[in-house]
Amino acid sequence: MGSTENVKLLGFWPSPFVMRVKIALSLKSINYEFIEEPFGPKSELLLKSNPVHKKIPVFFHGDDKIIAESLVIVNYIDETWAFGAQILPSDTYDRAIARFWAAYLDDKWYPSLQGVVFGPEEGKKAGLEAVSEGLSLLEDAFKKISKGNKFFGGEKIGYLDIALGSYLGWLKVTEKLANAKLLDEEKTPGLFKWTGDFVAEDDVKEFMPETEKLVGFAQMIIELFKN
Amino acid sequence: MGSTENVKLLGFWPSPFVMRVKIALSLKSINYEFIEEPFGPKSELLLKSNPVHKKIPVFFHGDDKIIAESLVIVNYIDETWAFGAQILPSDTYDRAIARFWAAYLDDKWYPSLQGVVFGPEEGKKAGLEAVSEGLSLLEDAFKKISKGNKFFGGEKIGYLDIALGSYLGWLKVTEKLANAKLLDEEKTPGLFKWTGDFVAEDDVKEFMPETEKLVGFAQMIIELFKN
Repeated sequence: MGSTENVKLLGFWPSPFVMRVKIALSLKSINYEFIEEPFGPKSELLLKSNPVHKKIPVFFHGDDKIIAESLVIVNYIDETWAFGAQILPSDTYDRAIARFWAAYLDDKWYPSLQGVVFGPEEGKKAGLEAVSEGLSLLEDAFKKISKGNKFFGGEKIGYLDIALGSYLGWLKVTEKLANAKLLDEEKTPGLFKWTGDFVAEDDVKEFMPETEKLVGFAQMIIELFKN
Repeated sequence: MGSTENVKLLGFWPSPFVMRVKIALSLKSINYEFIEEPFGPKSELLLKSNPVHKKIPVFFHGDDKIIAESLVIVNYIDETWAFGAQILPSDTYDRAIARFWAAYLDDKWYPSLQGVVFGPEEGKKAGLEAVSEGLSLLEDAFKKISKGNKFFGGEKIGYLDIALGSYLGWLKVTEKLANAKLLDEEKTPGLFKWTGDFVAEDDVKEFMPETEKLVGFAQMIIELFKN
């Protein structure tokens, strides 16, 4: 069991990856210091603590443990602190399936979503289709994995809920900016209900960014790279 | 503890990702049936068992457990069968560091390596530089993680040894086809020695493809996509 002293998280409010770590820490009731990475040139702390990727989140534990990559951090939190909610499924096969879909989200689905918001105009139609196809796959997966429960993780949120749920803010931004309905009650009824249940959770709602604020941030970034 | 009955692996001999699973199964002394995915149109079994990515390896356990993605499979093997060698480090921080570097290899380093072999001519110089920079990062990581032991995992091979070691065949192919020395005794002495130790392991040597055979395969693929 790891000490809960001296836990810090370096992050930036619009990041879905930072949100994952915040939810995981809330589920474990771990107190920590949040250090906001300033917008603009990367901080010395970021460059020093994550020299390979130079990306947030970066997680600090004790005097010398530094971890980057959101899913690696969530695994670490769950494995280091056995108390509180269990994040990864206890069955090894369920765990493998959760890890498979989390990797799918990060490697395939989210890059398509980002492409729709920030990518070139000509790729947006194909990007929206890829996002929708991904949601259909996830709808099927949700039915199989949740087995009639509220969440992928059962009656409580778990690893895959966190992995997908952290993208909900950016999914809403994409719907708004692309003027498209991606997650709706008819096409993806399971995920539609799941979304409502997920954002209502105590360990989630305080970390879910307001869509309007996130849209404003996205538009600012788009403007910045326009010229 | 999972049953060791009815274990199957669908793979293709030149794949580094399939090699990872073979090494993990050898470390656990699990008997399994290897099903060779034919070269050419994807088999029905592949399309049916991994509809999301349509990629090998696919791992089958018992009557109904199907898992894709090599690192997910290696995690599953280690967590399901506690006997035999331990693949992931027991310390949660060491485990996080091993997972971090394994993700780096798959997300950043190997795509650069592939780009040198199969990518357009104009990207090859930058690709070779990226591969070399990655090896320098890995050399530093090896010093820190191995703490003077033979392997990343200590005196026995572990998760990160398997993750990196499975790429050694393709690293040699890249050196040959690009006529470049990437892993050498002066620039990366730790990794250079590690390479020799890794391929000498009983659980590795029978799965390491011959470089000449792999070069022939690479050249065949390059020819195929030329016209």
